[in-house]
Amino acid sequence: MRVLIAGIDGYLGWPLALHLAARGHEVFGIDNFSRRRNVTEMGSWSATPIPRMEKRLEVARNLLGLRIKFFRGDLRRYQHAANVLRESRPDAIVHLGEQPSAPYSMIDWKHAAYTQENNVIGTLNLLWAMKEFCQGAHLVKLGTMGEYGTPNIEIPEGFFEIEFRGRKDKVPFPRQAGSFYHLSKVHDSANVALACKIWGLRSTDIMQGVVYGTMPDRITDHRLHTRFDFDEAFGTVINRFCAQAVIGYPLSPYGRGRQRRGVIALVDSIQCLTIAVESVPNPGEYRVFNQLDEIYGINELAELVYVAAVQMGIKAEIRSIENPRVELEEHFYKVDHNNLKKLGFRPTRTINEELQIMLKDLTRFRTRLRAKRHVIAPRVRWKGDLSTPLLAESDRAQPSSERGVISISRQPLKG
Amino acid sequence: MRVLIAGIDGYLGWPLALHLAARGHEVFGIDNFSRRRNVTEMGSWSATPIPRMEKRLEVARNLLGLRIKFFRGDLRRYQHAANVLRESRPDAIVHLGEQPSAPYSMIDWKHAAYTQENNVIGTLNLLWAMKEFCQGAHLVKLGTMGEYGTPNIEIPEGFFEIEFRGRKDKVPFPRQAGSFYHLSKVHDSANVALACKIWGLRSTDIMQGVVYGTMPDRITDHRLHTRFDFDEAFGTVINRFCAQAVIGYPLSPYGRGRQRRGVIALVDSIQCLTIAVESVPNPGEYRVFNQLDEIYGINELAELVYVAAVQMGIKAEIRSIENPRVELEEHFYKVDHNNLKKLGFRPTRTINEELQIMLKDLTRFRTRLRAKRHVIAPRVRWKGDLSTPLLAESDRAQPSSERGVISISRQPLKG
Repeated sequence: MRVLIAGIDGYLGWPLALHLAARGHEVFGIDNFSRRRNVTEMGSWSATPIPRMEKRLEVARNLLGLRIKFFRGDLRRYQHAANVLRESRPDAIVHLGEQPSAPYSMIDWKHAAYTQENNVIGTLNLLWAMKEFCQGAHLVKLGTMGEYGTPNIEIPEGFFEIEFRGRKDKVPFPRQAGSFYHLSKVHDSANVALACKIWGLRSTDIMQGVVYGTMPDRITDHRLHTRFDFDEAFGTVINRFCAQAVIGYPLSPYGRGRQRRGVIALVDSIQCLTIAVESVPNPGEYRVFNQLDEIYGINELAELVYVAAVQMGIKAEIRSIENPRVELEEHFYKVDHNNLKKLGFRPTRTINEELQIMLKDLTRFRTRLRAKRHVIAPRVRWKGDLSTPLLAESDRAQPSSERGVISISRQPLKG
Repeated sequence: MRVLIAGIDGYLGWPLALHLAARGHEVFGIDNFSRRRNVTEMGSWSATPIPRMEKRLEVARNLLGLRIKFFRGDLRRYQHAANVLRESRPDAIVHLGEQPSAPYSMIDWKHAAYTQENNVIGTLNLLWAMKEFCQGAHLVKLGTMGEYGTPNIEIPEGFFEIEFRGRKDKVPFPRQAGSFYHLSKVHDSANVALACKIWGLRSTDIMQGVVYGTMPDRITDHRLHTRFDFDEAFGTVINRFCAQAVIGYPLSPYGRGRQRRGVIALVDSIQCLTIAVESVPNPGEYRVFNQLDEIYGINELAELVYVAAVQMGIKAEIRSIENPRVELEEHFYKVDHNNLKKLGFRPTRTINEELQIMLKDLTRFRTRLRAKRHVIAPRVRWKGDLSTPLLAESDRAQPSSERGVISISRQPLKG
């Protein structure tokens, strides 16, 4: 297949490109390098040093024999979207080319508008360009589990059949996203669904859980690493906990830490996206996959990282901090995620195994983590603008019995 | 109250400004005159000649003693939103400042992106500026009944309580809008709801049906008329039928004409918006009003206009044309609309009475309607780009018995 990856320079985009190319697909990529710029703006960098795109492509070619064709471009400009589709003539487009951070979108009006314009207009341009140049292509669009929010009912995959006042219908599951970033993905989902309906485009909309992990297996050369962010905006929760553990910084769940989230390892996210690419929906079909492996509470995740760290001889501690977000800190959470399993998704390893790999990998980059230690504490508050960092307050820490710290002798949760 | 009207130069904005000012409110307005430009772009003009804003304000002041303060500005620019809020310090903001046409948004990628950027980013800027400069103000936001689409279940006002797999929750009613314009309003609704939740803003989101009518009563001086559009993009269905009748052009329902829509007279839309402004929600409250008076099928509306025309001695005919949209042409449609009634909304007159007023008013502007006769037939197709006009095809017209033409002796439908 000819596969175009929008956002190929990102955390998921780069390892996905290598994986798909290794499976024999003809891979094309587009990026505007905004992730590198935005992380720099946050005062941070990738824990793993990542070379320029030219170098990445060169190493992939020379070391692995993989030829990936890259276009520098910005989907906010329709002509860039049109040009890359004309040139690559893809069978599938994996759209990861969005601003992916909730805190970044909540900094101020400028970052909110940037996020929604970048994501919504970028996707809209891609849809119109698909209609014009590759109407039969399959759009694999990265959304987020955060689109659904945390309703008090079970979350199906995109749609549900309900009865209301004696009549039945199958309708989109209500979206209740909690940041302007998450809402940009909600807006995208609605735009993509309409394009499928009126133009006969085909799309898989991925509601992805929180991804964690360093580089997937097989990639040993450090020049082929993917980026690893740990700042408050671009670092995801488990990745941040691991970074904190490695540099002796307290692991910091927000608020009561009882928020529950679906999680998936990077290697399994790549596996799932590959499954989605290789299983083509019908023309006009808009399908939704909830892409996650397991569900944990945030405190549980902190404890799992704590345990993995202790197992490796790393001294870690957990201290909850004030929640900078506006969100339910304790809620019901049950999520369907069968569509990908039915297509063959099998988790690669247990979370404990993955955490040990991560901690080991990150230990090599301890100096780079330490150098940007100041970007770890959250400053962006949902209720206000940039503020002084929210530091761990020991008086807010809960006794470890209440947190239910897992004994280090306990077996991994999943065999 | 101090009331700011965004989009004060528009079809609803101008008469609302006069009405609120006459009720003793201190009225401010902002507009970028995009409606005038966009109608010109469609090759059309307002059937009622409308003076420049300076002239409108001057006549309102000299003739009616109403002082309205106007700001020229564009909500897509945050500083414009910030400045107008700082200057006007409103208690209520009525946000009508959006691109309101579905066909316009479907012309091509450029018009789709313009519509979503204008509407979504404009509203987002307004929300951030409210948070900064008037957190206690009440945002009355104009949405559309089109946000809901046409589900096979009853449509409540914004939210509904449902049971799913044995658990209950009150959640937003699913939105299934049918154009990139309608989706821009869906996106807005979600953004506004979040701002209420996290910042404690208060808002009334108006899901408005199709508005019809010329100028509300009491305004007799022609220099104070509101605009009246009849082109395919900016003319709404009943207004277009009336314009067609007046110049002897066939009334043209799209497709089978069995689409059902909520409708409301302009004078009653102004009444409802006034009720919304004067009834202030609590801080953090996000409430939804379905703003419509009655529900009709499109063929029924054509027949009502036909009947009103015949009553006035105007020879009219109805000829359905190919539907340029992608929509259900026959569907269930039942809509709650009690919130505004509970607050005192009472329809001013029957649709037949209103249609007679409209036809009489428009007869005065027959020359202006005739001059732009070529803009009436739709050219924008949902499935494609601009095309040759869709003309009435007599072989597609249904026999009048099937259309159930209403006898002219029949009483008005509502007493």
